Amino acid sequence: MQQATLNVKGMSCNHCVQAVEGAVRELGAEGKVHLAAGTATVTYDETKVTREQLAAAIEEQGYDVV
Amino acid sequence: MQQATLNVKGMSCNHCVQAVEGAVRELGAEGKVHLAAGTATVTYDETKVTREQLAAAIEEQGYDVV
Repeated sequence: MQQATLNVKGMSCNHCVQAVEGAVRELGAEGKVHLAAGTATVTYDETKVTREQLAAAIEEQGYDVV
Repeated sequence: MQQATLNVKGMSCNHCVQAVEGAVRELGAEGKVHLAAGTATVTYDETKVTREQLAAAIEEQGYDVV
């Protein structure tokens, strides 16, 4: 398992938290958003999904991964 | 029909807009949120729902009607 902390811009409320955590969950990963810090810490199986795919899924929700 | 503009605190993103507009829609009203202004303009049938019920539905979503 791999863990990465992504900097995510644009998350402002609990709905945003759910959108981001849900997006990575759909890829089989587990995400934990820290709203005040603007980060999402994601634990994932690096043999099944890449960090780039996780970032893309978050961006599809309308946020910027920087 | 009656129209009221409510001041709603805590709306920060498009998910919030959807939560508030959806809450009043469930009561048969039509809401239009102006995110930057922090307002929700609601058109409703005053014989079927009260302004207090509309405000309560918005507050149930986690926002403050002031």
